[in-house]
Amino acid sequence: MRISRSSRLKPKRYVIGVDFGTLSARALLVEVDTGREVESAVHEYADGVIESFLPGDHKQLPPDTALQNPADYIDALAKTIPRVLRRAKVRPEQVIGLATDFTCCTMLPTKADGTPLCFDTRWRKNPHAWVKLWKHHSAQPEATFINELGQQRTEAFIQTYGGKYSSEWFFSKLLETVNDAWGVYQAADRFIEAGDWIVWQLCGEEKRNLSAAGFKAMRVYPSKAIDGERTSPTPRAQGDSEPTPTPPRRGTDRAPLLGGVGVGRFMGRPAGAGGWTYPSKEFFKALNPRLENVVAEKMSAELYPLGSKAGSLTHAMAKRTGLSPGIPVAVGNIDAHVAVPACQVTTPGKLVMILGTSTCHLLLSDTKREVEGICGVVQDGVVSGLWGYEAGQAGVGDLFAWYVERAVPGYVTLDAKRAGMSVHELLEQQASRLQPGESGLLALDWWNGNRSVLVDTDLSGLLIGATLATQPHEIYRALIEATAFGTRKIIEAFRCGGIAIEELYACGGLAQKNALLLQIYADVTGMPIKVAASEQTSALGAAMHAAVAAGAYRDIHAAARRMARLRKKVYRPNQESKVIYDLLYAQYSRLHDELGRDPKSPMKVLKGLRNQAFIAKTKPKKP
Amino acid sequence: MRISRSSRLKPKRYVIGVDFGTLSARALLVEVDTGREVESAVHEYADGVIESFLPGDHKQLPPDTALQNPADYIDALAKTIPRVLRRAKVRPEQVIGLATDFTCCTMLPTKADGTPLCFDTRWRKNPHAWVKLWKHHSAQPEATFINELGQQRTEAFIQTYGGKYSSEWFFSKLLETVNDAWGVYQAADRFIEAGDWIVWQLCGEEKRNLSAAGFKAMRVYPSKAIDGERTSPTPRAQGDSEPTPTPPRRGTDRAPLLGGVGVGRFMGRPAGAGGWTYPSKEFFKALNPRLENVVAEKMSAELYPLGSKAGSLTHAMAKRTGLSPGIPVAVGNIDAHVAVPACQVTTPGKLVMILGTSTCHLLLSDTKREVEGICGVVQDGVVSGLWGYEAGQAGVGDLFAWYVERAVPGYVTLDAKRAGMSVHELLEQQASRLQPGESGLLALDWWNGNRSVLVDTDLSGLLIGATLATQPHEIYRALIEATAFGTRKIIEAFRCGGIAIEELYACGGLAQKNALLLQIYADVTGMPIKVAASEQTSALGAAMHAAVAAGAYRDIHAAARRMARLRKKVYRPNQESKVIYDLLYAQYSRLHDELGRDPKSPMKVLKGLRNQAFIAKTKPKKP
Repeated sequence: MRISRSSRLKPKRYVIGVDFGTLSARALLVEVDTGREVESAVHEYADGVIESFLPGDHKQLPPDTALQNPADYIDALAKTIPRVLRRAKVRPEQVIGLATDFTCCTMLPTKADGTPLCFDTRWRKNPHAWVKLWKHHSAQPEATFINELGQQRTEAFIQTYGGKYSSEWFFSKLLETVNDAWGVYQAADRFIEAGDWIVWQLCGEEKRNLSAAGFKAMRVYPSKAIDGERTSPTPRAQGDSEPTPTPPRRGTDRAPLLGGVGVGRFMGRPAGAGGWTYPSKEFFKALNPRLENVVAEKMSAELYPLGSKAGSLTHAMAKRTGLSPGIPVAVGNIDAHVAVPACQVTTPGKLVMILGTSTCHLLLSDTKREVEGICGVVQDGVVSGLWGYEAGQAGVGDLFAWYVERAVPGYVTLDAKRAGMSVHELLEQQASRLQPGESGLLALDWWNGNRSVLVDTDLSGLLIGATLATQPHEIYRALIEATAFGTRKIIEAFRCGGIAIEELYACGGLAQKNALLLQIYADVTGMPIKVAASEQTSALGAAMHAAVAAGAYRDIHAAARRMARLRKKVYRPNQESKVIYDLLYAQYSRLHDELGRDPKSPMKVLKGLRNQAFIAKTKPKKP
Repeated sequence: MRISRSSRLKPKRYVIGVDFGTLSARALLVEVDTGREVESAVHEYADGVIESFLPGDHKQLPPDTALQNPADYIDALAKTIPRVLRRAKVRPEQVIGLATDFTCCTMLPTKADGTPLCFDTRWRKNPHAWVKLWKHHSAQPEATFINELGQQRTEAFIQTYGGKYSSEWFFSKLLETVNDAWGVYQAADRFIEAGDWIVWQLCGEEKRNLSAAGFKAMRVYPSKAIDGERTSPTPRAQGDSEPTPTPPRRGTDRAPLLGGVGVGRFMGRPAGAGGWTYPSKEFFKALNPRLENVVAEKMSAELYPLGSKAGSLTHAMAKRTGLSPGIPVAVGNIDAHVAVPACQVTTPGKLVMILGTSTCHLLLSDTKREVEGICGVVQDGVVSGLWGYEAGQAGVGDLFAWYVERAVPGYVTLDAKRAGMSVHELLEQQASRLQPGESGLLALDWWNGNRSVLVDTDLSGLLIGATLATQPHEIYRALIEATAFGTRKIIEAFRCGGIAIEELYACGGLAQKNALLLQIYADVTGMPIKVAASEQTSALGAAMHAAVAAGAYRDIHAAARRMARLRKKVYRPNQESKVIYDLLYAQYSRLHDELGRDPKSPMKVLKGLRNQAFIAKTKPKKP
């Protein structure tokens, strides 16, 4: 057996990225020098998404509740990492770093030592003591109040978040706890992103990432002052992109970023005028007098850049995961964001669509502009040296899953079984034979509310054009088209804001599985779509950040050049389809504006009546 | 064995009513003196509704096509009548009369002897040679043109038909044939309602009923002249309502009504000024020069009142049906209309809802008023001596059937099977546990277009308020509620037109099967609902007309008193539900008007694109 020279000279080095998703976590073992994905393992959370009853309890939870059990996250680490090591026959000492990514904003209250409040028997029957998952949507009243107050006070975050702060985000969820469970708020020492909490569990240090704080927790740059400002991009390694053998130590060696005191930049660049900051105490006090000191008392102003080392793997966690104690653990990443470099995207003008249960749109730019309804814009928040813009659609894969589970008739399920296909595959096959417009259907893709550009969880799904001849695959296609129109709305919002988009990139489960979807997106947007080669870009992106934190690469740009790849197939728009989709999009836009921008929209009235009915039904009857 | 005196004295007399529905025909044997329903038999049409391919052909039919095979109607007579006689052990000579009712407008072209054109091999590949079923919807362009022209010329039918002539009706369908199949028009000697055609087949005489002509074929009373006019009601038999043993001969003894020549009344009353008439030759000429003499050349101006005798059963049909030759055959009835006296309704102020695949609303009044979007108003058209108003909803049972067939997931079907219920029953059971507003859903019930009050087949179905938590029984309830809101719109249109409605009556399959539906209708309208005892009111109503034609009763009023019955259970509105439904109805009304009244409605644009896509797809490709 011939052994190659390189493999004889140096043993292979690996990193692990762990991607914490909505229903499961995935660990991915990646070869540092090539980006080759060696092995992965998935663990489904035992308690999944808690929507109806708390574990061990039988009291109906309110509508729009979506909680998780933090014990599931630790279980996932202990289940998946040993499995990938074993299957790949990789020795612990070959793994030089570990990084994670997480859904966001997914947050929880903990004690000072990091113990989740829901582990405490005194609090475990209170839903607010549990992890509020990103899609926990019941804090819309709080979000509405935050927006009213923010607009009244012209707070900087209003502009940064495209005009609206979402009910999905940190302070909406936290304010809901203050309003509905004051005891929980008092008992909690910390409120923390689950993505920072898992890093805390791994390395024993509470080191929060700047990205989540910037995108979800109002830590923004004073707005008007720098609108349109050009950043001096971070110097990148040029030419030879070989793995750097002995890089400068990173992470904990670097000074943390202190929010609110003007030390808002890292990697050697000076802080900008004014700097990054959370809103003032006055703002929080106006929100609720009890919140005046929330940042100082319950959070942390120290924030760390992506790819930096948060700490070293503890002995306890080394034992549970089978890794070597002391290896670098990177600061937490947001699941969608970390996919961007895994799509080889580290430069402006390329919109990355992470197509999963929901869709996250990420865009890099060297300027900061005002864009309607985006989820946020954070300098260095996605890739160092550039402004990272985030937008999103709250229900995409979830919408198709809802459709298949709740509205696809039995005969289709049987047909799929007979054809040896999944229901999705069969519907895709049938739907791909339709021409644009042929079904006569149109949908608004708001089954899970609208994240961009309307930023309103009170909006809901709509299907129009149904007839007695309407068939399941026609509805399926209409739902796909609706999500494509939603993406086009986002692209147009960026363009109206003066941010160029020249190419689309897709990754995530749907991008791998659903060719029809990508073709429809290309046809609806009129732009070609490139697709990540990796089927697990978030885990790969996390692994890439582990490699950077471990010093194997100078920065994420260098890591992206070596570790990320694209598929050969590019989806190019069909001009005939585009013409018809332009007409359909005009109708989508009309309904979008009439039903989405009207404060008295039937959608809002219906949600109001639904909530009233829930209250009336759960209210204890008088004897 | 004790034999009652009456049964010893006179052998029982029977009549048969045959109800020709959308998918099947039903024969019902009824005891003349009591209205007791003795036996019935159903025959499903072999070719059912022809929507995709003509029998024996493989050319795709255009969208919105709905045809039938007239051979199925004859088969139905030959299959069902012998079966009821055999099962009931009734001798042919005991059956003293036969009547039919039919869906309407369901029309066909025939030769001069009544042979359907589609029986001719030269024409059988042309869809226009077949029966155009009531729900054949592709003549919307023709209907639109008829309405434009009618409005421009202030034709009387425009007002009679509530402002709009429907694409479902006689001249829309006929004009479509002229436009698309000129050869068929030329080859046809007659265009006739299937309900009149089947009578022709039974007794060998082409005797058309006045009701279909008045409600579907523009034979109207000059409008403004008599708006608000009070009719002098037809004298009715008072006091003793015993079956009249030797009534005056009716039907053929009576002079036919000559449309267009001012002889527009029957039963001894004089013709009103101007009288009933089809539109002028000038109107038809303006519609299409080839149509100038359509009434004289292809139709018949002689029309006969309901309950009159069209002729005697021919020997040929007696042989096929097993009945005695020569028994009276009544003139044709419209299926929905004939249900009114079968609900015991023969006086004003009572809205009868015939809840089937579609819903027909019928109301009697002693005045004629202008009512938006009604299907028609015809003096003596439903019950003699009163103005009969018709309105309708184009898809009701059909809509629920579509939902169960095309959009209910397999697990619900399985659950129903396990519970020994139909899917409808299970969904009804689950939906009945919901409070109004609880689902957060709202629908527009236009899966089959809107018949009243918008009269527009280009409108389509809408569901709004869907979330990822939406469940099948919630959608099912929203669809029921949507049809209830549609009925409320119709009731309000009548009231706005000055026609009182004090009570609701329900009959038809849904009224028998779906208690939840009736409760929701009561809650949404705020009115009590009484339900017909008969499960086959159309067939019973036809049988009642057979009894009148046979002279067993003086008139339909007398027959209704003896032969029709109501159920004891009355559905009364729940006031708490009514309050919430008022709020939901406001949202329904908003969407109804915004999407239903706008000529540029997304629904219309979508239908336009759908039709374009169909044309593009079926157009032969150039080599």
